[in-house]
Amino acid sequence: MFEFTVHASSGRARTGTLTLPHGAIETPAFMPVGTQGTVRALSPADLKAVGAGIVLANTYHLHVRPGEDVIAQLGGLHQFMAWDRPLLTDSGGFQVFSLAGFRRVDDEGVEFQSHVDGGRRILTPERATEIQWTLGADIAMAFDHVAPGAADEATSRDALERTLRWLERCATRHRVLSDGRQTLWPILQGGTHRALREEGLRRILDMGSWTGLAIGGLSVGEPKPKMYEVLETLEPRLPAPIPRYLMGVGFPEDLIAAVERGVDLFDCVAPTRNGRNGSALTPEGALNIRNAAFRTDSGPLDPTCDCETCTTYSRGYLRHLFVADELLGLRLLSLHNVRYLIRLAEAMRAAIRKGNGALAAWADDWRRRYNQPGIA
Amino acid sequence: MFEFTVHASSGRARTGTLTLPHGAIETPAFMPVGTQGTVRALSPADLKAVGAGIVLANTYHLHVRPGEDVIAQLGGLHQFMAWDRPLLTDSGGFQVFSLAGFRRVDDEGVEFQSHVDGGRRILTPERATEIQWTLGADIAMAFDHVAPGAADEATSRDALERTLRWLERCATRHRVLSDGRQTLWPILQGGTHRALREEGLRRILDMGSWTGLAIGGLSVGEPKPKMYEVLETLEPRLPAPIPRYLMGVGFPEDLIAAVERGVDLFDCVAPTRNGRNGSALTPEGALNIRNAAFRTDSGPLDPTCDCETCTTYSRGYLRHLFVADELLGLRLLSLHNVRYLIRLAEAMRAAIRKGNGALAAWADDWRRRYNQPGIA
Repeated sequence: MFEFTVHASSGRARTGTLTLPHGAIETPAFMPVGTQGTVRALSPADLKAVGAGIVLANTYHLHVRPGEDVIAQLGGLHQFMAWDRPLLTDSGGFQVFSLAGFRRVDDEGVEFQSHVDGGRRILTPERATEIQWTLGADIAMAFDHVAPGAADEATSRDALERTLRWLERCATRHRVLSDGRQTLWPILQGGTHRALREEGLRRILDMGSWTGLAIGGLSVGEPKPKMYEVLETLEPRLPAPIPRYLMGVGFPEDLIAAVERGVDLFDCVAPTRNGRNGSALTPEGALNIRNAAFRTDSGPLDPTCDCETCTTYSRGYLRHLFVADELLGLRLLSLHNVRYLIRLAEAMRAAIRKGNGALAAWADDWRRRYNQPGIA
Repeated sequence: MFEFTVHASSGRARTGTLTLPHGAIETPAFMPVGTQGTVRALSPADLKAVGAGIVLANTYHLHVRPGEDVIAQLGGLHQFMAWDRPLLTDSGGFQVFSLAGFRRVDDEGVEFQSHVDGGRRILTPERATEIQWTLGADIAMAFDHVAPGAADEATSRDALERTLRWLERCATRHRVLSDGRQTLWPILQGGTHRALREEGLRRILDMGSWTGLAIGGLSVGEPKPKMYEVLETLEPRLPAPIPRYLMGVGFPEDLIAAVERGVDLFDCVAPTRNGRNGSALTPEGALNIRNAAFRTDSGPLDPTCDCETCTTYSRGYLRHLFVADELLGLRLLSLHNVRYLIRLAEAMRAAIRKGNGALAAWADDWRRRYNQPGIA
């Protein structure tokens, strides 16, 4: 039910198949984020059209609104959002620690203020596990204490220790609840402190046999070389037969650097959020479609792309939609940006399968082209 | 190129086929409105999926932004908005007279203030015709002087006389421009004054042989019986072999009443505008999807409907999308409402074809069910 098979590798990068109750996905893979049970501006049919195999939804947001009880009454999260492929729910840890408003943390859990009605609510490892079980995603995440990106060693140590204690409680609760239709993945914290990351990983692996492992607390403001360093430290210590999920990473250059360092799974709101702001990913870098240069541009948004947006509309029309505040624009750029990252993962899979340094050559070529001047 | 064939009739109602350069449409037909070159929240693929055969776009809005020159450089309106089926552009008359802001009218034309940049602009019958020719829709509308719904006879007479003088100028300009890929339709004004309507119609028909005729200045605040009265007055005087287009009418009950009075074509922003406000058309009347009663309602929005929204999602999920301000909700209700009106037209066509009073029986049945209590 929760198998992962590695097919090919090229240096530390690898391709694989992750089999889940709602289907199998090929890795490396990018997961679009459906925070409130919908990937903003896109329908499930759109997501299938761009090749999305798995979607992430946010436990915190769905717990606050409409509530997991409502979703359960409507048949669970898959049926609720009409998505019959795999789903992953995060645990709410990241949201509780990153959203504004009142927050009180102790070993028991986190008391916080709902961003919807301002009401006080409590999340504990057990509650986060129960809510996710009720939602019914294929993959649930352990409830974690997230420290800020620039946290010193003592703060990162505290967050790591608490996250490990909470992982034990999540796993205990999940064992009681689960009938095998959902798996629970641990989240490794430890900031940019390599010794903490190594120790945390060792202690997580000592706690049991997991079907996947997430690396949290990166891409939260630390310098990029620090993130790459942590991934390089972890890679030889990660068991090969389980997928590695780098949480919240979605800039194209980071996806590539992380795949080269052995990561299999990614999620990020950037492609849809930036798309709604008029920013489109292209092989030459991001472009802002509102730019006056595109006013009468009859070419496609990204000439290399096969998505509905790029095969149907001109840049001039897309610019008009944004300048005129038309809803269709938000959807068309979100669609393209998600397709862009899924195609990026597809291209990396193909290069890894080729072997013989094909991934490195592909990545060098990609980097030379990306962010070239000459595009707005 | 601009043929209209009447197939069946039932009382004054009839079915027909209108053949245009970009395809043929079956009448009675409802035209979704794409004000700025996009039917708000819907893609051309969505419009085809719900069976839309023809779309209306607004000359005023497209002239002001992005400008007809930009659209021409991007291949004309069809290619610009990626819609390969028939298009109709209104003349801008209605917008110029109904949008807020400065306006000065004389026989030459209308000077008005752009709602986008506040700049002064001038529309004349000739300019409105040229702009529409540049846009390239299958059907262009004559530039008309629209009087308020409650206008007295003298005001309505003035508007009618000016509209007739302007029609002459539109037709003259259109004859020079057109190479046969676009037709021009006159608009009949005259308010709720039956004698004015009769006279206006006679004088329009005396001016030439038209491929269609629009009835303007109705559904602008007058009592519904007044509108029905005008339609009844006109019907026996309208030449059977040309389609009759009732402008701006789109409430389901008005569509039916007008088809019963011999009208063939309709347009209205209501289905998409109301959809974006959470109001959905159903056989029992409009419902507001935000209503708390739908919180855990697992049924479809409209159990009789075959659209993607009704066959894929629960009312509970749609309510969540609206309560959580998610963009997908705007699209799904717009999609359903447009489908609802297109299905209404389909149902009327089927009843008219049956003959033997089938339309009257169908309409009675429909009215009994619509706006029944028992639905929110």
